[in-house]
Amino acid sequence: MEATDRTGERDSLDPPGWAEFRTVAHAAVDDAIARISGLRDGPVWQPMPNAARARFRQPLPVAPQPLAEVYAEVAEGVLPHAMGNVHPRFFSWYMGAGDLTGALGDFLAAVDGSNLGGGDTAATAVDRQVTGWICQMMGFPEGASAALVSGGSMANIIGLTAARNAMAGVDLRHEGLDALPQPLAFYASDQVHSCHKKAMNLLGLGLNALRRVPTDADFRMDLAALEGLIADDLARGIRPACVIATAGTTNTGSVDDLNAVADLCRRHGIWLHVDGCIGALLAIAPRSAGLVAGMERADSLAMDLHKWLHAPFDVGCVVIRDRRLHRETFAEEAEYLEQAERGLAATEFLHHYTLETTRSFRALKLWMMLKHHGVARFGALIDRNVAQARHLADRIKADPRLELLAPVATSIVCFRYNPGEMDEPALDRLNHEILFQLQETGIAAPSGTTLRGRFCLRVALCNHRTQLADLDLLLDEVCKRGDLESRTAAPRSA
Amino acid sequence: MEATDRTGERDSLDPPGWAEFRTVAHAAVDDAIARISGLRDGPVWQPMPNAARARFRQPLPVAPQPLAEVYAEVAEGVLPHAMGNVHPRFFSWYMGAGDLTGALGDFLAAVDGSNLGGGDTAATAVDRQVTGWICQMMGFPEGASAALVSGGSMANIIGLTAARNAMAGVDLRHEGLDALPQPLAFYASDQVHSCHKKAMNLLGLGLNALRRVPTDADFRMDLAALEGLIADDLARGIRPACVIATAGTTNTGSVDDLNAVADLCRRHGIWLHVDGCIGALLAIAPRSAGLVAGMERADSLAMDLHKWLHAPFDVGCVVIRDRRLHRETFAEEAEYLEQAERGLAATEFLHHYTLETTRSFRALKLWMMLKHHGVARFGALIDRNVAQARHLADRIKADPRLELLAPVATSIVCFRYNPGEMDEPALDRLNHEILFQLQETGIAAPSGTTLRGRFCLRVALCNHRTQLADLDLLLDEVCKRGDLESRTAAPRSA
Ligand SMILES: Cc1ncc(COP(=O)(O)O)c(C=O)c1O
Ligand SMILES: Cc1ncc(COP(=O)(O)O)c(C=O)c1O
Repeated sequence: MEATDRTGERDSLDPPGWAEFRTVAHAAVDDAIARISGLRDGPVWQPMPNAARARFRQPLPVAPQPLAEVYAEVAEGVLPHAMGNVHPRFFSWYMGAGDLTGALGDFLAAVDGSNLGGGDTAATAVDRQVTGWICQMMGFPEGASAALVSGGSMANIIGLTAARNAMAGVDLRHEGLDALPQPLAFYASDQVHSCHKKAMNLLGLGLNALRRVPTDADFRMDLAALEGLIADDLARGIRPACVIATAGTTNTGSVDDLNAVADLCRRHGIWLHVDGCIGALLAIAPRSAGLVAGMERADSLAMDLHKWLHAPFDVGCVVIRDRRLHRETFAEEAEYLEQAERGLAATEFLHHYTLETTRSFRALKLWMMLKHHGVARFGALIDRNVAQARHLADRIKADPRLELLAPVATSIVCFRYNPGEMDEPALDRLNHEILFQLQETGIAAPSGTTLRGRFCLRVALCNHRTQLADLDLLLDEVCKRGDLESRTAAPRSA
Repeated sequence: MEATDRTGERDSLDPPGWAEFRTVAHAAVDDAIARISGLRDGPVWQPMPNAARARFRQPLPVAPQPLAEVYAEVAEGVLPHAMGNVHPRFFSWYMGAGDLTGALGDFLAAVDGSNLGGGDTAATAVDRQVTGWICQMMGFPEGASAALVSGGSMANIIGLTAARNAMAGVDLRHEGLDALPQPLAFYASDQVHSCHKKAMNLLGLGLNALRRVPTDADFRMDLAALEGLIADDLARGIRPACVIATAGTTNTGSVDDLNAVADLCRRHGIWLHVDGCIGALLAIAPRSAGLVAGMERADSLAMDLHKWLHAPFDVGCVVIRDRRLHRETFAEEAEYLEQAERGLAATEFLHHYTLETTRSFRALKLWMMLKHHGVARFGALIDRNVAQARHLADRIKADPRLELLAPVATSIVCFRYNPGEMDEPALDRLNHEILFQLQETGIAAPSGTTLRGRFCLRVALCNHRTQLADLDLLLDEVCKRGDLESRTAAPRSA
């Protein structure tokens, strides 16, 4: 056996003794605790100096390098330049803040090694249990099914695929869109997340088949306009197939009137898909659950556990009311993946419910987090973020230099520094400058967005480590920097 | 602040003291080492007794539970009933055997917390570096791009979407398949993986648009038949858009003649997609690289790092020759995700290259594994698996009770116990019985498949822990059980 002589018959990726791995892994645990418990004292984010970037231009490693050295590179070169979403003053986009129980879950999932494509394993049992819990948390009835996927985008894609296939009126799986008796139209508000545009492209429907419904002053879908668009399509022989309602829009956190949309969909026989990536978990928050009333009437729901449940990236979930439809959307049989009567393959394959074949054991971190923290605790922390958003909005309204640019429906606050007497381009520049300074100094990390043409600072409260004092600090810094910059910036815009 | 009183202003998911987490996480590290170093002494897999299943029927946890208890449940209830792919005698389907350096990488990725959707972070720098390394490992030129995704299925879906959109001749992204001037046809052998069927459905082309090209005695695509199908389509006004060649089929590990397919595609102006989920990594194995010659000529390539690189699930990769085409396939802009001049968002968003928006820091485990082990070591281990497959085939050929059902092209061996004088149904039953016994006793876990109507045991050698003795044990057990069962089973089939 020439080839085996080369690496040695007993060689493997496992180290001959485990001493180095043991030392490094224990250090990683202690360092992780130190990192997370010390977050508040450090910057949210810091730009990488050029020297630090050089590390990431090194050539493909051919020869081995001791694990301790590799770990030192991670500790010194990678972690200090992380995104910062674990930090109490990270408010960008919409992400969870992570949780070490979840991180341990990811480690244990890798140690377990199971492939969640299927198999009669404890891992698939955990996956079934967790998806059952999620259906229950979301208020879906028995008979619904759910699948853990890489994130909200994938969950939306799966929901929209189920909608497309269910509403086609032909066997789309075999025949393709060519066979459609009528073109299909989808509807979503002008606030819909960009992943739905990816989905329309992917599904072969094209962006033009996605009608963008205008929103009202609260950034909620205008239902009269929606009715009008549906009527137009019907008149043109187009089949209204699916309304995408959003429970928590990315820009402002607004929630479409889900009960009204559900009524409308029922009336017209249209599939209701709810994008609950941001807001779906409000359903487990005792004081805020009413904000997403009606969500449980959806035919499909996309949600994210790496947002308000703070599971480490990545894990989203799609819930589909009708398990049979869900399965029919994706199930493909193969001779090498046959369910067996006995043994390892003696259970339904889970890859019938997602686009993936192999799937990681994402369920384990959720299982551990839900058991360790309990769902009540997550609900209370979500309620707290909602209350914090209101507090922030109140402080903004009370300060004449600050301007709230959207009502606060859930936990996102959009505002700008506006001392008056500046034109729009100057305000845009000034608020960009404030945003960059906050990020670059590491004081806080809101993100920016543009609402009805006006650039603003966007504070998404999806963080279990944020305290009111963090928000007060944020506003103080915005005002301090705004005051200073507006003195110098204003003339530039003249 | 009522709501904050509820959970306490300083409350978070972080434990007030870290003592319990520290103890549990250190125990998890030691237990992981014990598990992996002791694998050989335990069963590959064992079915769960009913009592063990009860744990996974408990209701949604509302109240918290100490982490030590939750961990004990994982250690006692979950890990003992894992799939077994970490074990040296796991030969089912096609999966990597895992690696604790990779598991540590998953933990550290969760501790880092970065979202790989974008952002100017070390994490995105690591991702860019690793995908660059992969392009180089696969022999792709500068200007190619690659994206880490959840697995081979997703990598294939992305490659086929790029092919569809590039070959459409219209702006498919906006207009959808409705606007196609000619229908599109895709081609793949009858051995193609089921994920391509999911893709055809998803993309709206429908399964009927996937021409199944027959295979020769070596389970390789019959190129004369392919030419014939293309000619038929051209004659009918259908546009031949994409050939899906397989580098390592799931059933037998056969590799289509990639150079010949590439020539054919160039001649006809057809997009060449190579599904290299199984075989692409042969390119880094010095003695076996020739098996996938021509792969580097693909327009798109799907591959899996959780197979022959043994990265913990999940991580696959799509490589696309033309970065601009790759980006144009998926890029969607959004006002809340604008690339900025400075700060956290001052770099190209990576979500333009995948279906996801949020993406986990999969690159870290690969970065750590490639640096720690070095690419040469992975190549040598792949060569060893190929040599082991040949050894196994030789032993099978030498034993009159065993029948090899397909040539061994790479690292998959399909065979059955066939003592002669049994009809096909009896042989099927007998080999099923042998398979179940091997799995149920935990001795070894091949999987089963059906080749040209005949059921067989399928041994996929994608395991860095397998030694020749494991293969000898496997064959001894097959023969022992076959001898015993055929004495009792044969009469049943009369
Ligand atoms: C409303 C909405 N939908 C979908 C998504 C996409 O989710 P993910 O990033 O998990 O793919 C997001 C992301 O923030 C979102 O805000
Ligand atoms: C040839 C081939 N393609 C694609 C896949 C799908 O890869 P994954 O399971 O990573 O999604 C497989 C899985 O084994 C495969 O064998």
